[in-house]
Amino acid sequence: MEFLKDYTSKIDKGLKSINLSENPANLYDPLRYFFQLGGKRIRPILTLLASECFDRNGVNESINAALAIEIFHNFSLVHDDIMDEAPVRRGKQTVHKKWNQNIAILCGDVMLVKAYEYLNSYSPEKAKQLIEIFNKTAIDVCEGQQMDMDFEKLSNVTQDEYIKMITLKTSVLLGCALQMGAIIGGGDLKEQNDLYDYGLNMGIAFQIQDDLLDLYGDPKLVGKQVGGDIIAKKNTLLMVVAKESANQKQLKTLEKLLSEKNIEKKIDGIIALFKILKVQEKCEELMNEYYKMAEYHLQNINLNTYKSKLWLLTNQLQKRNY
Amino acid sequence: MEFLKDYTSKIDKGLKSINLSENPANLYDPLRYFFQLGGKRIRPILTLLASECFDRNGVNESINAALAIEIFHNFSLVHDDIMDEAPVRRGKQTVHKKWNQNIAILCGDVMLVKAYEYLNSYSPEKAKQLIEIFNKTAIDVCEGQQMDMDFEKLSNVTQDEYIKMITLKTSVLLGCALQMGAIIGGGDLKEQNDLYDYGLNMGIAFQIQDDLLDLYGDPKLVGKQVGGDIIAKKNTLLMVVAKESANQKQLKTLEKLLSEKNIEKKIDGIIALFKILKVQEKCEELMNEYYKMAEYHLQNINLNTYKSKLWLLTNQLQKRNY
Repeated sequence: MEFLKDYTSKIDKGLKSINLSENPANLYDPLRYFFQLGGKRIRPILTLLASECFDRNGVNESINAALAIEIFHNFSLVHDDIMDEAPVRRGKQTVHKKWNQNIAILCGDVMLVKAYEYLNSYSPEKAKQLIEIFNKTAIDVCEGQQMDMDFEKLSNVTQDEYIKMITLKTSVLLGCALQMGAIIGGGDLKEQNDLYDYGLNMGIAFQIQDDLLDLYGDPKLVGKQVGGDIIAKKNTLLMVVAKESANQKQLKTLEKLLSEKNIEKKIDGIIALFKILKVQEKCEELMNEYYKMAEYHLQNINLNTYKSKLWLLTNQLQKRNY
Repeated sequence: MEFLKDYTSKIDKGLKSINLSENPANLYDPLRYFFQLGGKRIRPILTLLASECFDRNGVNESINAALAIEIFHNFSLVHDDIMDEAPVRRGKQTVHKKWNQNIAILCGDVMLVKAYEYLNSYSPEKAKQLIEIFNKTAIDVCEGQQMDMDFEKLSNVTQDEYIKMITLKTSVLLGCALQMGAIIGGGDLKEQNDLYDYGLNMGIAFQIQDDLLDLYGDPKLVGKQVGGDIIAKKNTLLMVVAKESANQKQLKTLEKLLSEKNIEKKIDGIIALFKILKVQEKCEELMNEYYKMAEYHLQNINLNTYKSKLWLLTNQLQKRNY
């Protein structure tokens, strides 16, 4: 997304200029390492864009909150990577692999505190408002992560439970990022809430799209193996919908396919079964509902032209095929 | 310490009434479990006592900050227990043992956020001040924990480095607890700083005393094996001072004793060597210096009679033999 480049580089610059001690090196080297791994910086950009909706100087005012959001996101990635035993993040070694697990736990802890330092840099009234929504969101994210871990051991997760999990684990942070921008830019409570709901619904739609692209995206564009989620035994909406739609016989077929060792046979079989169960259509329908709700909340806000950048972002995200 | 009972039960009650969701149970059950494991609650009591120095109603005003301090302390214990692979805490299974490591990581994370919820419950101005000192302290504690882990792999830690490590890892939190009480009670900046420094020095003295009691305390009163720290290969001031005081020949004797497999022979040999090196006297001297500095800062504050409870606490802690 070309028009976002300025914003991304602003965030990257901000992360580079975070004031970190040299020592203990085993505490701060992992932070520096992780911050420069890059990433789309979508969440902090949402904060900057939201604040620009209300205040032309919003980007400068909201940069600290944007950094807090990105630091928090990084905290959750470092700790999630331990929990998922993930060896690689953004093409590089994860912190617990490159150093060790204890260092990764502390690295995440210190990141979380750093996020609060940035939030507490605002005026007392703004800081209190920002920290309030941030606390709520951070708790939600922990709950979502726990639900995700719990679901790994369950075979009968419902669609509603799955949507609740992705809402908490990922979407609330998009809502929070936008609401913070609105708070700093001077949006009123209704505008703050509309932006929060816009982010929440966008986030859910985006996650469903991720699940869909794993099986139905162009592997060249997505950059990973078709059906990677199935191979990794990950919970996805596709699997949840398939299980809810299947009759007893189809469920047995699915179970058999899931234990099939020939990967090609497994993926092809599952795609064929999903076609009969209309899994793709059902998930796309749900995704579009969330995109529509997101659009509805964005339409509610009638402000300066900067809003158009949020529209642009929405459209580009919807049309993405990777 | 009899006179502290009311305060302890106030903290215990507060921890019980923390508003925690039922679900996800795997996230919140460990929190409930850990909060009711008990403990001396020294840190939150310091907040209550400090606030009472300035305001007769201080205990009610400062309870939320006191709970934040105790929740933070619990967060650090849950994460430290993972790092130290500790199976037992306060006579019960640690969270990562009773559940698992991933649950313990998330349990700590959510505790840290909960601490901020309690701090953010104050008026915007007070909340900002409280969160500022809290952030600084939390960063210090992470640095101290990292130093402690680093020291495990070093054989040449100096006395200054060791004191810096225990200052960051444990003493700053006592200072922070007291400063918060002063902020809430309405103490001025000088009073806040004196209480902070009182706590800091008390904390260092207290930690040195812990190290001393391990080898020179009455095992019946201390409730653990004499020389437990040596057996567990823990860094203590005693070992640091011994290594700094020893000549080459004595160092070799110490190394030999440290690899001795007969525990009784090991401890007796080390006690004998420490006697020659005057380890106990040197550590006691240092401890008394810190107790004196603590007293100096407490003397600086000339307020209502509630201060006497802090004096009482100081005296009792100094005289403890377990």
